[in-house]
Amino acid sequence: MTHQATTHPLDDALALQARDNGVFVGHTTQAYWNMVGPFGGITAASMLQAVMQHPQLLGEPISLTVNFAGAVMEGDFTIRANPVRTNRSTQHWMLTLEQPGPDGQMMVATTATVVTAVRRETWSVSDCPMPKVPDASHFERAAPDFPAQWLNAYDMRPVTGNFPKAWDGGGDASLSQLWVRDMPERSLDFVSLAAASDLFFPRIWLRRAKRVPIGTVSITTYFHATGAQLAQTGSSYLFAQAQAQELRNGFFDQTAQLWNAEGLMLATSNQIVYYKE
Amino acid sequence: MTHQATTHPLDDALALQARDNGVFVGHTTQAYWNMVGPFGGITAASMLQAVMQHPQLLGEPISLTVNFAGAVMEGDFTIRANPVRTNRSTQHWMLTLEQPGPDGQMMVATTATVVTAVRRETWSVSDCPMPKVPDASHFERAAPDFPAQWLNAYDMRPVTGNFPKAWDGGGDASLSQLWVRDMPERSLDFVSLAAASDLFFPRIWLRRAKRVPIGTVSITTYFHATGAQLAQTGSSYLFAQAQAQELRNGFFDQTAQLWNAEGLMLATSNQIVYYKE
Repeated sequence: MTHQATTHPLDDALALQARDNGVFVGHTTQAYWNMVGPFGGITAASMLQAVMQHPQLLGEPISLTVNFAGAVMEGDFTIRANPVRTNRSTQHWMLTLEQPGPDGQMMVATTATVVTAVRRETWSVSDCPMPKVPDASHFERAAPDFPAQWLNAYDMRPVTGNFPKAWDGGGDASLSQLWVRDMPERSLDFVSLAAASDLFFPRIWLRRAKRVPIGTVSITTYFHATGAQLAQTGSSYLFAQAQAQELRNGFFDQTAQLWNAEGLMLATSNQIVYYKE
Repeated sequence: MTHQATTHPLDDALALQARDNGVFVGHTTQAYWNMVGPFGGITAASMLQAVMQHPQLLGEPISLTVNFAGAVMEGDFTIRANPVRTNRSTQHWMLTLEQPGPDGQMMVATTATVVTAVRRETWSVSDCPMPKVPDASHFERAAPDFPAQWLNAYDMRPVTGNFPKAWDGGGDASLSQLWVRDMPERSLDFVSLAAASDLFFPRIWLRRAKRVPIGTVSITTYFHATGAQLAQTGSSYLFAQAQAQELRNGFFDQTAQLWNAEGLMLATSNQIVYYKE
């Protein structure tokens, strides 16, 4: 008998085959499936993965913007990652994700821009300290709240602003706080952090206590930690917080922060989300 | 004698000549000059202007991300605006701004993605109400704080978090609030709002009470109002607020909100900024 090493479902979902000239081919997986396509966070992470695996990569991720232009279908997808400008210590990337459309021609489903840079140690301070809450062991894992496979890929422990129990239109706030980590456990890196930046349920569902159709249009994540700091964080819980600022005429925004358990800010993230009604 | 209609300096700076296939040629102007290149807000607005003037535009701006890949030099620049995906009610754009490099070949100085959409009236609410402050007439216009021409293009009336008087390393907060409008007055639209989203002086200068070299790397602005609401806002003062969340190892972020005087959230904006030391 041979011993088969187990690939973590996240690494399976983010596996890319490199072709020439910054072209990568990936494949959707069931483990991160949402209602009608992959979990947006996994698509964002796939875009970043192409940059991380590109032979010309300079430095580490600073900024990631991913625009969800159309549904990603089950099956293969092609990512094109182009380092359009490389400076001494920063690098600028443009990316597309394509799949064949109904009549066979390639269609853009996702666009992205990424900034990478060589970081140096400088004077530093946090102006948004982590809220003081009991550690993750004091909270229970929430059962998945709606039928989406990707929810099983996270151990989410709500602290405040949990999924509404009653859809009675009685919501009055949009803030959620939770402890979260990958399930099964996996040591943190930039791609898993990019995925985790999108794991909050829709702010409008909480604010309105009503489930309306939604879809993220664009997400931007800023990375504040180095790869070494993420590795040091390992598989311990992250503290994650999200809140809407404005919900108006079909679109709401969400501002989010993710810290490690030691209170180090790992990422700040913003998104704009379409909603109906 | 003929009467010469006066072009507003902002419209002068954002004037683009359309060529074929989404190519636009613009020219830097002195009125929005910063220290070593154009004010970042005017470059962001130029990218959006190319989308606004594109014959295939669908809807109005929802999201704008602009990445500052390299310095924009004095002179002509070429913007390429590509509507990579058009859906029923949303449209996704990728853009570059190029100028000739030292040896004559075109170099990418700026990249951008834009999402536009047809907005519909829906249930709406604000979860980030405008702070209650006296109106703009209660505050004095601040004289430009550092030698940059573009500062003269805005009437800025600091409410809190003004430019430090002493560079003594004694800063303790990064929040600024101000009333602001274009000078000379100009009726608000998407391009002027995009520019205004970048008008805050560097958060690290305030937080540290020390001036260190900085440069915005990427800015993302979400638009929450319609063009009709911006026109209705006219040339009255906007209330603008900005704060850093994390300043660490060479990069800090900034989260900003801009309301009109009636308290309507017009835009939320985030950026990540390089700093030295």
